Formats: sequence, structure tokens, C-alpha cells
Amino acid sequence: MFDPSDHPHRRYNPLMGRWVLVSPHRAKRPWQGQQEAVDREAKPAHDPDCYLCAGNTRVNGEKNPDYTGTFVFTNDFAALMADTPEAPPGADPLFQSMSVRGTSRVICFSPDHSKSLPRLALPAIEGVIDTWCDQSAELGQTHRWVQVFENKGAVMGCSNPHPHGQIWATSFLPDLPAKEDSQQRGYFAEHGKPLLLDYAEREAADGERVVVSTEYWLAVVPYWASWPFETLLLPRFPVRRLEDLTQPQRADLALALQRLTIRYDNLFQASFPYSMGWHGAPYDVGGAANDSGEDSAPWQLHAHFYPPLLRSASVRKFMVGFEMLAETQRDLTPEQAAAQLRAVPEVHYLD
Amino acid sequence: MFDPSDHPHRRYNPLMGRWVLVSPHRAKRPWQGQQEAVDREAKPAHDPDCYLCAGNTRVNGEKNPDYTGTFVFTNDFAALMADTPEAPPGADPLFQSMSVRGTSRVICFSPDHSKSLPRLALPAIEGVIDTWCDQSAELGQTHRWVQVFENKGAVMGCSNPHPHGQIWATSFLPDLPAKEDSQQRGYFAEHGKPLLLDYAEREAADGERVVVSTEYWLAVVPYWASWPFETLLLPRFPVRRLEDLTQPQRADLALALQRLTIRYDNLFQASFPYSMGWHGAPYDVGGAANDSGEDSAPWQLHAHFYPPLLRSASVRKFMVGFEMLAETQRDLTPEQAAAQLRAVPEVHYLD
Ligand SMILES: O=P(O)(O)O[C@H]1O[C@H](CO)[C@@H](O)[C@H](O)[C@H]1O
Ligand SMILES: O=P(O)(O)O[C@H]1O[C@H](CO)[C@@H](O)[C@H](O)[C@H]1O
Repeated sequence: MFDPSDHPHRRYNPLMGRWVLVSPHRAKRPWQGQQEAVDREAKPAHDPDCYLCAGNTRVNGEKNPDYTGTFVFTNDFAALMADTPEAPPGADPLFQSMSVRGTSRVICFSPDHSKSLPRLALPAIEGVIDTWCDQSAELGQTHRWVQVFENKGAVMGCSNPHPHGQIWATSFLPDLPAKEDSQQRGYFAEHGKPLLLDYAEREAADGERVVVSTEYWLAVVPYWASWPFETLLLPRFPVRRLEDLTQPQRADLALALQRLTIRYDNLFQASFPYSMGWHGAPYDVGGAANDSGEDSAPWQLHAHFYPPLLRSASVRKFMVGFEMLAETQRDLTPEQAAAQLRAVPEVHYLD
Repeated sequence: MFDPSDHPHRRYNPLMGRWVLVSPHRAKRPWQGQQEAVDREAKPAHDPDCYLCAGNTRVNGEKNPDYTGTFVFTNDFAALMADTPEAPPGADPLFQSMSVRGTSRVICFSPDHSKSLPRLALPAIEGVIDTWCDQSAELGQTHRWVQVFENKGAVMGCSNPHPHGQIWATSFLPDLPAKEDSQQRGYFAEHGKPLLLDYAEREAADGERVVVSTEYWLAVVPYWASWPFETLLLPRFPVRRLEDLTQPQRADLALALQRLTIRYDNLFQASFPYSMGWHGAPYDVGGAANDSGEDSAPWQLHAHFYPPLLRSASVRKFMVGFEMLAETQRDLTPEQAAAQLRAVPEVHYLD
């Protein structure tokens, strides 16, 4: 008899239109490979050497203000520029390129160097959420896509432990949201409801993959998760973009974010690394008409959390080899991951 | 005026149907983040603690033979099993899964613990190629897809420095080759020639992205490369699968592989980590009729090399944040990467 908690199988990700290979029995293999550095170090509230702390000077000579809440500035080494010249289109189908424009900003979450998201008080998390919403609204006026995200932890390429995230805004709809766009449109055309609204309802009713549940929000290890402890943070109501959230929905989001990130830290009793970010309906900028009522109706706002760890604070999942060449593969089921995240307390292990 | 070596732009990957963001000016930013462990250690020819060395005993108690060339065995912790029971298909479009079958094998490249691919003599590399070809032919009899690959270096999740690769054979066509399959079919339908044969011809004529060129083979940093020093190893003649290679084509492939991997090692004067693997036409197993003459005609055999390093032996590119949520991004142009790889000698720095 087929048993999904023991037998290899594939699951389909309807949001991305791709499959993931699940090999639950593989979690038993011993690990003799690379160990990651574990972040258990207590940090000072202000670090004189940190270029993100209030009052300190950055590489380009600018001095940060004495900010008290969040602080946003343009990335000193931005991947996108506002004034890139137009490029002539090429004719060869094998050598296609296009010039792009955009901007890239940094958001300091708090002046306190030591306080990552799970260590911040609720009003401070609400401040971060308001900043995300305001930035999206502002940059969405002139950019087709606004990507709000956070890289947390050295293993995720974060080069400064000061709590901060980024926003990259682009003149084009990037590859992965473009795929989510067409998948959500396809589902909506067939079922008449947003894919992720249907999905949130079914996950809330089932409960097996739920990690955090509040009045307005639901965090699940999705049925099709790639990363061992990946989660999808879903609104339990229709909403297309960050800036459309009401005040009560934002306050409740602060609670959901706090609970989720505390569970993450508690899982291996260490500051839990991840990349997280928000996806909402693209903006009607640059001629693409998908902002007009009916047209963005298939879209549902959501956040992805992609954490690299697998077995402990120092053993990560490597997405290499078979994963890079053939298909993403995971070593425990999403249901097993959700059960582990539900089993830890909602009070931070350092409190 | 738009200058692709300085201005942000996107390039299209016709083999995968996706885009990559190129931000050449970003290479200038300083790096204060994680440093990778560098593999410069001289290794013994035989390590009594290595479970892949000849004559040693593996975790499961089995003793390796006193092999002299390559040695293939079934992975002790395989991600796929031959006898997975069938699963009943589900009806819900949001919760789709399928049972899968397959096998997973390990190939030791040489009994010499100290000799990675660039350090092996040509006849030994030919032996590895023959093993790849034989394994593909054998497993292709009963599997829809045979993924030959190598994870090299601790940073690529390789837990044992003994030169070895893997083969995972699956009852299904995995996600990424399925995409390559449909892209190649689309191109063939429109242009009447295999996409990668056209591409190899144009790259050979242009030369700007060529790294290694032999009688039968061409290694280029593809126009659409994701990883900083990614290469695509292409046959300069039509061929669909590894096992279809003739003896002279195999001997010449050994030369091309040796030259490419020596250049990689020489780039940062260290053992160069990567995941590499082969893609050829899927097998006509499991009812999918794509093995019949005309039908696999769009396919061209090729190998991908995905190396993580960016600036030095200890500074990697992190595919995180924007890359995981929006679109792959690179910090130097493929032309710049190819020029760097062409600038180093073809004699190994340790010789
Ligand atoms: O089987 P290995 O080499 O121990 O495992 C490694 O390669 C596999 C296939 O690419 C990956 O799934 C694992 O994450 C990686 O650690
Ligand atoms: O700008 P940062 O944080 O230094 O850079 C980090 O995040 C970027 C966006 O996710 C990535 O492109 C880089 O590879 C990573 O190192």
C-alpha cells in the first residue's frame, strides 16, 4: 500500500506549475558534509562598525540619521538603475535581451542591531509592515513589479546581521511572478476564484500543514514545499497587494509574523536563516493592462519563506546536482515539517 | 547609448524559456559576508576512512572491491526505490501527487582518492565517459529519464572528496528536462533544426563566449548563464544521447572535459566546486512516445556546469532573495566570465 510518509512520490505546485520529488525515507541518511556557522551570538543594541546602525557612516560616506523606527535608503550597490538607456531589440531568437530600469532600496527594520523580526515587539513589527505597504504603494506608481524581501543569516548571503530587508522595483514583470501570474489566471478562469483563497480555505479546514493561524492569516508548509521548512503565509480574505491591507489586518499580520518567526528560531534554538518575500498583483505600468479590476482578480497577496536548514542549526539542505539539473527534491514530507514547527512553543527560547 | 557590459539588462534562456537579470556594474561592490572553505589540501591516494576508496567498508557493511577504473554501486540512501507501490490519483487540482519509481547509483571515477576530474589522465577520463554512456544505455531500457551528474566540493553539498558522481534514474520525466524538452520541440517545429546545434554553430563562429573548443566539442559560457562561471558543453555534431557517441567523439570529449575543468581549477587556484550533469533525449519508457526517430530529433545531448563561485575561491554567488522570489540575477556578463576563463592556462596550476 502506498504511504506518502514513507514512499517516494512527486507533488505538484499549482502556483508555479512545477513538481517536487519527495523522498521521506531519505531523512535517515547520516550527514558527513559541510556544517554551517550557527548564529547564537548575543549582539549589542548598537554596533559602531555596522553601516546600518543609526548615526553610523556608510561606504559611500553618507551618514545614517538617528532613526527610531524603520529607515529606508537607496542601495549603495543597486542591481537596477533608474536611467538605463533603451536597447535596440535583437532579431536572433537565440540571443535575445532587453534593457531594464528600476531601483533597489534597503529597509532597516529597527535601530536595535540585536533584534531580528522574532525579537521585535508587535508595534515595531507593525512599523515594518507599514513601511513595506508604503514602499509598495509608492514604487508601484512607476514600476511594473515591486519585490519586497529579506535575506536573513550568513548562509542566505546576508552580509550584515543588522535586521534589514530590501525592495527591488523593476520596469518588467520578473520570471517567477510572471509564472505565478499565469498560473493564477489559469485557475481563476477555470474555477472563478483566486487559487490561493481556495487553497487557504482547504488548508485551514484540514489543519495538517498549518503552522500558525490567526484571525486574518494562515501560515502553512505548502503541500508542494521545496525547502524542508518552507512556509506560505496566506491571507484568509481576498486581497491583492500589501497596500490594500486594513489596519486590523496589518496588526494581525504582525502577530502572525511574530509567531511564525519565533517558531522558526525555536526549531533549532538559533537565529533561523531564510529568504522571505511578498508577491502581490503586478502594477499596471509600462503598458501591460493587468491592473484593471477584473484583470487582477485572480491575484492573492502572499509571502514565501524559504529557509535552508534541514536537520539542525548547522546542517542545511543542498539544492544541487539532481535539483539543479532535474527536479527539486525534499527529504521529509511537508506534513512532517509542519508537525515539527507546531511542536515547538510560541514563546522565544531566549525569553 | 546602451552598453551591455555596463548597463542592467535581461537575457532570455531559450532552452529553459526563462530570463536572467544581468547587472554588470554590481561586481564592484565590496563583500563582507560569508567566506567558503577553500579546498587546497593535498589528499592521499588512499584514505582508510573514505567509504569510497577501494577495499574499504561502507556504512551498510558492504566492502568495496579492489577496483582499478570506475566503480558503480547502488546508493545506500537512495532517493528513489524500484518497488514503490502505485498511488491512487487525487481529484483535487490543488493537492496533486503521483507515486514514482527509480534508482540511484554512485560512480567512483577512480580508485585514487586524490584525483578529481582535472587531475585524471585522459584514458581515465575516457573510462568515466564510457561508464556514463553504459549506465545511460542500461538504465534507459527501463527508465524514462537517466540523470548523470556530479556534485563537486563541500560548498555543493558533496560530503566526500573522493572523485565520484551519481546517476538517478526515474520513471518520470523530471521538471527541468521536461521544460528543455518542450523548448527544443518548439524551436525545432519553427526552425527545422535542433536548437542547440544552431546555437553551437553561432557561438563557434562568434567566439566571444567560447572557453574550450576541440574537434567535436565546444564549451561556452552561455549567453543566458545564471551562475557566474556557468558553462554549457555542446557537441558540434547532431547527437541525442550519451550512448550514441562514437569512440573518437568520446576520446575528444575526454580532452574537452580535461581542458574545461583545468581552466576552472586555475581560475582561483583551488579545486573548483560545481554541480555538472548530462541532458539527452528522454527514453521511450512508460508509454510516452518520444523515442521514435522524428520525435527525439529536436534533442541535442549537452552537459551543464553550475559552479557557485563569484570572486575568489572563498566568495560565492548567493542565489537568494530576489533570485528565489523574482528572477535569477548575475553580477558580471557571460562575455566577461568567458574572457576570464580563457585567460588562464590550460596546464593545471599544480603541475
Ligand atoms: O546524495 P548526496 O551526495 O549525499 O546528496 C547531495 O546530492 C543530492 C543530489 O544532488 C542532493 O539531493 C542533496 O541535497 C545533496 O546533499
Ligand atoms: O545586496 P546583498 O544583500 O548584499 O546581496 C544578497 O542579496 C541579493 C538579492 O537577493 C543577491 O543578489 C546577492 O547574491 C546576495 O548576496
